[in-house]
Amino acid sequence: MVYKVLGDYSKLIEEQKTDSQYFIGIDIGGTNTRVVYATENGDYYTIKEFLCSNITKLIEELTIIQNECLGNFIEPEFCCIDLAGPHLSKNKYKLTNYIESDNFLYTEKLPSKLCPPGKFAVLNDLESGAYGIIPFMRSEGGLDSIFSTIVQQTGPLRQPDNCVYPVLAAGTGLGVGLITKFGDQYKVIPSEFGHISICSDTNDCEQELFKKLQNIIKEKEITRTNYSLEYEDIVSGRGVQALYSIMKHENEPERNNSEIASQAAANPENLNCSCVKTMKIHYQYLVRCAREISVGTFGASVFLIGDNIVRNNAMVCSIKPFLGEEFLDHPKLEWLSTIPVFGQKIIINLNLIGCIFYASSQILKKN
Amino acid sequence: MVYKVLGDYSKLIEEQKTDSQYFIGIDIGGTNTRVVYATENGDYYTIKEFLCSNITKLIEELTIIQNECLGNFIEPEFCCIDLAGPHLSKNKYKLTNYIESDNFLYTEKLPSKLCPPGKFAVLNDLESGAYGIIPFMRSEGGLDSIFSTIVQQTGPLRQPDNCVYPVLAAGTGLGVGLITKFGDQYKVIPSEFGHISICSDTNDCEQELFKKLQNIIKEKEITRTNYSLEYEDIVSGRGVQALYSIMKHENEPERNNSEIASQAAANPENLNCSCVKTMKIHYQYLVRCAREISVGTFGASVFLIGDNIVRNNAMVCSIKPFLGEEFLDHPKLEWLSTIPVFGQKIIINLNLIGCIFYASSQILKKN
Repeated sequence: MVYKVLGDYSKLIEEQKTDSQYFIGIDIGGTNTRVVYATENGDYYTIKEFLCSNITKLIEELTIIQNECLGNFIEPEFCCIDLAGPHLSKNKYKLTNYIESDNFLYTEKLPSKLCPPGKFAVLNDLESGAYGIIPFMRSEGGLDSIFSTIVQQTGPLRQPDNCVYPVLAAGTGLGVGLITKFGDQYKVIPSEFGHISICSDTNDCEQELFKKLQNIIKEKEITRTNYSLEYEDIVSGRGVQALYSIMKHENEPERNNSEIASQAAANPENLNCSCVKTMKIHYQYLVRCAREISVGTFGASVFLIGDNIVRNNAMVCSIKPFLGEEFLDHPKLEWLSTIPVFGQKIIINLNLIGCIFYASSQILKKN
Repeated sequence: MVYKVLGDYSKLIEEQKTDSQYFIGIDIGGTNTRVVYATENGDYYTIKEFLCSNITKLIEELTIIQNECLGNFIEPEFCCIDLAGPHLSKNKYKLTNYIESDNFLYTEKLPSKLCPPGKFAVLNDLESGAYGIIPFMRSEGGLDSIFSTIVQQTGPLRQPDNCVYPVLAAGTGLGVGLITKFGDQYKVIPSEFGHISICSDTNDCEQELFKKLQNIIKEKEITRTNYSLEYEDIVSGRGVQALYSIMKHENEPERNNSEIASQAAANPENLNCSCVKTMKIHYQYLVRCAREISVGTFGASVFLIGDNIVRNNAMVCSIKPFLGEEFLDHPKLEWLSTIPVFGQKIIINLNLIGCIFYASSQILKKN
């Protein structure tokens, strides 16, 4: 088991001395924020979980945790925070899933004992998600416990000393991170490979689909000036909407993305269903993007993470052979056939685990 | 000035004590091998430069250098070798530019005082070339001394603490490396982004060109089973040949690549010349590949290196506006407009400089 949950705040008070070394993980979602106290081996107590969608409340809650919950405890060794949004400048982050009028985090506003200057880090959610995979890689049977194989490699699994593992998370957008391994050192490189241009298999149906998508983009994204398609134009929340609007019959209702996904999951074999068609194309291009990144990085294995891939498991399983063909449809199929594609199979907070892993690695580095 | 040449072997003997700390750089080309003695600040003496295209001779020559030239010297602190070819297993490398009957290097055969076990590294030539840029990045005016700007960024140059610099070298193949910067730590990640699929701007002429290229590939690469185009299918020695065979008039002669390049350089403005057309397309797709990698890595700046880009400077300069348009032709043009593309402008052995940089960084890491 990787990083056991030891209990809640009352258990923490009961079991841990106030002068023990520890670290803090703060996972900031759009709705929920979780703050945990992790021991040196990564096992952790949930100090508090609270609803929060604006910076003012976030800072208030963290200050309460510092002063009231952890008032008697020594300073943490390291604190790692993850959030969704871009790093705008040295000390400034935008939380894209917070309310727009109060969504800029200035790190100097963070309570300084909980997040000690020079001893905290802020990751974006894709980075923390990718870091969250690493403890599972390093634990016997860890990967099998949370991932299923979507594309099975045909050759022996490559496990070189130095390599790259691409990680893709399809959600509102298409996040991509690269886990790099140098010997026993792991590091995540954030990337933007969800935004590279879609390559085409140059068959006619595909060109037709692209044209329709471009027309939708022209209509909806009025400030956009270039209509070449990025993978994220298909593999994203807005991508699913666009695909569905192309696939649906004239008198079929509008549906939101979770309706489309659950409709597809209900009967994934029914290829006449517009929702099935939509999700099939969505996953086809996710896998194509994974393929291109795998070739480019000569990846050792690929991880598809996030709640969506877990929820859409039935759909994904029903089209495994199709996705396998898509993954290998490239001149470098000799390379690609050594690369398995794994899909997250259970709901687990990889972001939080990634924060704990990152914080504890900083301590190890120092020693 | 980055890494001064201090002289040849006789100078070395005259100026350096046999018990001084030093490191060794070995740049293995297809024809020439250079072995240098570098002082702690990176300035270096050329111990020997010799013709060599097979492993037996390489080991013989290195053994002579160890026993005769450096017989009285203490062991080097670190030795860094660069070569062209894949790393096949822990201790085995294939040198693709050596004669085929004698081109496998087993590292245990290397003379053990010159290349002390645990104190040497083998890089491929693209890795060493990318490492070779780093000392120029860190020296005031260094980059300007060896690079010219091919695509000027329009916004202010981004110089974030952590970032990626894509490096592309178009030669026989299309080599791509990623220089990653974390604070003041630099590391090169070898990559295979020259092999990702070409994305299309979906205009008709391009589809026509792709079909013609695919037909040539079907004819020439008889073991290939997938004819989707990789960037390397255009941006490579064989790519230039294929393009020229498509562009040339019926009664125009066959030409080798250096003839095509020099013909184009002679009159780069003449767009009716088949050689100019060929080289223009070659550089268009080099820049397109650079664009996609820049988007995917959110690169800080791009470096095009290698002797070819130096030799074809006149051609490249004459189509700068065209290449600039190609680089920005993407939905993320806001990002791309902050990324300059630099082209190497003088012939310089970046591979050797990279070996010296790499070796000296290993020493620094240890201390």
